[in-house]
Amino acid sequence: MNIEEIRRIFHNAPFIAELGIELACAGDGQCETTLEIRPQHLQQDGFVHAGVQSTIADHTAGAAAGTLIGPGEIVLTAEFKINLLRPARGDRLICRATVIKPGGTLMVVESAVFCVLDSTETLVSRLMGTMAVLPLKKS
Amino acid sequence: MNIEEIRRIFHNAPFIAELGIELACAGDGQCETTLEIRPQHLQQDGFVHAGVQSTIADHTAGAAAGTLIGPGEIVLTAEFKINLLRPARGDRLICRATVIKPGGTLMVVESAVFCVLDSTETLVSRLMGTMAVLPLKKS
Amino acid sequence: MNIEEIRRIFHNAPFIAELGIELACAGDGQCETTLEIRPQHLQQDGFVHAGVQSTIADHTAGAAAGTLIGPGEIVLTAEFKINLLRPARGDRLICRATVIKPGGTLMVVESAVFCVLDSTETLVSRLMGTMAVLPLKKS
Amino acid sequence: MNIEEIRRIFHNAPFIAELGIELACAGDGQCETTLEIRPQHLQQDGFVHAGVQSTIADHTAGAAAGTLIGPGEIVLTAEFKINLLRPARGDRLICRATVIKPGGTLMVVESAVFCVLDSTETLVSRLMGTMAVLPLKKS
Repeated sequence: MNIEEIRRIFHNAPFIAELGIELACAGDGQCETTLEIRPQHLQQDGFVHAGVQSTIADHTAGAAAGTLIGPGEIVLTAEFKINLLRPARGDRLICRATVIKPGGTLMVVESAVFCVLDSTETLVSRLMGTMAVLPLKKS
Repeated sequence: MNIEEIRRIFHNAPFIAELGIELACAGDGQCETTLEIRPQHLQQDGFVHAGVQSTIADHTAGAAAGTLIGPGEIVLTAEFKINLLRPARGDRLICRATVIKPGGTLMVVESAVFCVLDSTETLVSRLMGTMAVLPLKKS
Repeated sequence: MNIEEIRRIFHNAPFIAELGIELACAGDGQCETTLEIRPQHLQQDGFVHAGVQSTIADHTAGAAAGTLIGPGEIVLTAEFKINLLRPARGDRLICRATVIKPGGTLMVVESAVFCVLDSTETLVSRLMGTMAVLPLKKS
Repeated sequence: MNIEEIRRIFHNAPFIAELGIELACAGDGQCETTLEIRPQHLQQDGFVHAGVQSTIADHTAGAAAGTLIGPGEIVLTAEFKINLLRPARGDRLICRATVIKPGGTLMVVESAVFCVLDSTETLVSRLMGTMAVLPLKKS
């Protein structure tokens, strides 16, 4: 998949569009995304919700895997694990994902999520997950 | 924390209110929540996004841990792992979480997410995570 | 695979025989194993090493998946996550694993490890993992 | 803890000595170990058992965390997740671990396990885990 197709997936994934996650760049088993932090992304103590961090980390990982699949294939998350390293507070999240094991049926991908506050990036979470590559079934 | 305090957290967590996750019941290391599936919860292939499943599974786990903390304490997710067992399609998600290891600084919690389609519940994902118990700091 | 074939795998897996892990019973997506705790299974503080707990939890999970595969297939661990709930001290470990999502290429399995001290079982760790089903290649 | 204390832990951990895992170097939140692969480390298909990979990845992660603790403290694994990227066959394992989030009660550590065959290193597994820092209790 090329970057235009990846970009289309970001637009066609309602939950990603709703959150406001944007594709920065993608290619060759890598992907970078950003999210302007808004009040609706927070949890009850004012930090970015773990669910928001998981969503950007997972979706960016899936997009990194998506750069390596063929036409007629889709990527679905089989599992991931995320470590939330510190409370996330800031203006913006940046997520960078890299495929560490490509494959025709399974890919292993790592993501790092950074929180940007006053132009300083701090690593806030790390994801390691498995993506399943499946044939696209028209429903 | 009693159920009224847990309920307040659901209302005070903007991301949870935004998604529409509702508290069904909570107490004694357990919590159950529901979410009516709407178009904005889907990914590009029409399934409930892994990020939505992660959010309900994580937040319900946190609330289950929250039933066991004292006044002046908060719960933050340290890490979780989620296995997405099958594509999730349906009308509603139900999540049930149970603390399997209580503790004063760390609790281990498991969640199960079910997708309801035409009144049939199917298990769609399983989470196992670690919650950190921290003193509330007024900021 | 029937129980005799599963038993043969336990004998043919040198690391499992070396540790002393024994098959108690298996069938229909389930498996139970035991290990008499010996000094060489411990870490520096006198607890059962996380690596021993991981090994019994993983291998039992693999055997549970093995009860559901066909002839000419093998099971390899793709990933697992283990939570070590409390320091493990005792006479014996018991591990029980259950396949929660069978499948032709991937299975998701959960294991619980109990430590037995003076006939009291205590849950010491929980594993959730993904097993890949592969065709056996003669090398 | 300095390298001599870390080295003593490797000798005092019977399971690590039994397996043959050796400390190469350690310091400042990092640790490297090696293991000569012997027949007793294999599973039934001739690959290095997932339990052996988990043990070296976990113990090296714990040692990396150990370089950052004070006197009278110990490190216990709270949880880890490991992705086994490919079947491991070779002469030797090398494991490198790095603390990515230091802390007084919890540290997050990543390990990479490489299999060396004919002087070529191949990444075979990746671990991400949480280590708990506890006061040493004399028993």
